[in-house]
Amino acid sequence: MPRRRLPAEAYIEGVRANDRATLARAITVVESAHPDDAALAATILDALLPLTGNSRRIGITGVPGAGKSTFIDRLGMQLIHERNETVAVLSVDPSSPISGGSILGDKTRMEKLAAEDAAFIRPSPSSGHLGGVAPRTREVMLLCEAAGYRNILIETVGVGQSETAVRSMTDFFLLLMLPGAGDELQGIKRGILEMADALAINKADGDNLERARRAHSDYVSALHLFPPSPDGWSPPVLLCSALTGDGVAEVWQKILDHHAHLETTGRFESRRAEQSLAWLRELVRLGLDDNFRRAVASTPRYEQLVREGRTTPLAAARQLLDEFNRNQA
Amino acid sequence: MPRRRLPAEAYIEGVRANDRATLARAITVVESAHPDDAALAATILDALLPLTGNSRRIGITGVPGAGKSTFIDRLGMQLIHERNETVAVLSVDPSSPISGGSILGDKTRMEKLAAEDAAFIRPSPSSGHLGGVAPRTREVMLLCEAAGYRNILIETVGVGQSETAVRSMTDFFLLLMLPGAGDELQGIKRGILEMADALAINKADGDNLERARRAHSDYVSALHLFPPSPDGWSPPVLLCSALTGDGVAEVWQKILDHHAHLETTGRFESRRAEQSLAWLRELVRLGLDDNFRRAVASTPRYEQLVREGRTTPLAAARQLLDEFNRNQA
Repeated sequence: MPRRRLPAEAYIEGVRANDRATLARAITVVESAHPDDAALAATILDALLPLTGNSRRIGITGVPGAGKSTFIDRLGMQLIHERNETVAVLSVDPSSPISGGSILGDKTRMEKLAAEDAAFIRPSPSSGHLGGVAPRTREVMLLCEAAGYRNILIETVGVGQSETAVRSMTDFFLLLMLPGAGDELQGIKRGILEMADALAINKADGDNLERARRAHSDYVSALHLFPPSPDGWSPPVLLCSALTGDGVAEVWQKILDHHAHLETTGRFESRRAEQSLAWLRELVRLGLDDNFRRAVASTPRYEQLVREGRTTPLAAARQLLDEFNRNQA
Repeated sequence: MPRRRLPAEAYIEGVRANDRATLARAITVVESAHPDDAALAATILDALLPLTGNSRRIGITGVPGAGKSTFIDRLGMQLIHERNETVAVLSVDPSSPISGGSILGDKTRMEKLAAEDAAFIRPSPSSGHLGGVAPRTREVMLLCEAAGYRNILIETVGVGQSETAVRSMTDFFLLLMLPGAGDELQGIKRGILEMADALAINKADGDNLERARRAHSDYVSALHLFPPSPDGWSPPVLLCSALTGDGVAEVWQKILDHHAHLETTGRFESRRAEQSLAWLRELVRLGLDDNFRRAVASTPRYEQLVREGRTTPLAAARQLLDEFNRNQA
């Protein structure tokens, strides 16, 4: 595939002007693993960074089947048509490490929102990062902010590492649950519950309503077990139905309340500062990996020796790290 | 907390002799984040590595609430009392990054197995690695092998990054599911299904039996969508009940069948070679992090500047990586 790149200025101006096609192409540059794109990506980000920081950054996670995509589709449509907002949705959708793609294609998800001019939907390619946030989700978020999207919704799949990463780049972290609390509550680890700024029990409609109410009181009790959050915010437990739309506006109102609470208490600035710090650490880690790849030529040879059982991983790792130390000089 | 360490030879001999207390202390050394312990850990591992490789390495994962601990408790008891086997269980139980610990304490899980002499249960401390496998799970597994445990069961929680890590260190990867396929199948990503060497639908008892049978045929259909595995093994879908014990022996038989299949086809050696390769990559990554910490003194200063908004994460990362490059000389 030939890579055709524009001059940096074209990306910068295009994103600034909220030109969707250029935004999409700028994201491709930022997500690129090709070394030639690194400098271009840095130039674009440096230029656009002053335009970032003005959106609400919202992470949405939940157990498998909790209806995350349907919820985001519904919430996004309400934001656009009832509140005149703009929305960018980043899906951290871990692809298969073997054959790529997920069982549900991205095109069949959020189909209403996908047709809206005020919405921008971008699934993150996280090939090989199963369960992990795509390495560049944060940078993609910043590009969407620079393009003027007022609300960034970052959807994560499953219960694992990606939640910690997404929590570290958002202002609000919403945990979607299913009615029928017993089994689930055992599966949701305390760490995930502690990260949540609100729990919403989705699919609280029809026959599920009674179970949803029981789950509600179970979760309220469970949350009482926790120490108060450093933000001084008590995560509410809400009922909603992405299918009928009931309760979705109330979830949004809590997100606004939380934002106001953070601003009043001065915690908003510190939460944003923590986000920048997490980004710094990620950038250093990625840069270090890159240094290693450039300085060490023997990786394939030692990998072959280990594969053949002719040396141990412990001994090979020592050799490679020694080579790195010598060649960094 | 004062760290009291034995001479390396004491750990090596104690593990070799399957002295449980010494094994536990050796694991503590290997898991230690303290720099003084690194050389001791390397000495112990180098000495014990020739004694490793003779166990069955089995990863067990599943959706929240699938009953992983109950299943392992039941399976472990059957192995010990009906097959005269020994079992080590490593729980990759992501602790809370904030307050530590999970909702269910480790002591209340696998309570029968915990009382057995032929079983060794060690929860991995993965503080701060929410959803991730503890950094030293592989080394702990090797110590347990050197101590003579014939079966290593590595339990992971949730659906995410830790599964990829555990898959990369095991011979067999079992996915436990709940009856009631619809919602779950949407949530389980293709990548997780593709990694599984078998699916077992747990809680197939009493009122659940009919739903479990429907789930069974759904999963069988779903697995047909996949390309054949490189091992030439078709993952079976099984029903079991950890509560009653029904079907657990059949799951174990499939694990033995799979092992025999790998040996017959020559794939066993290559799967073990892949495990060593994954370990090598992890050791290099950890060593690199360590180099950086030793070479770069300005991290706290730049973190402070970023926290205060006086520089951007992009600029700070460049400065820190430059400092690393200068000081590695």
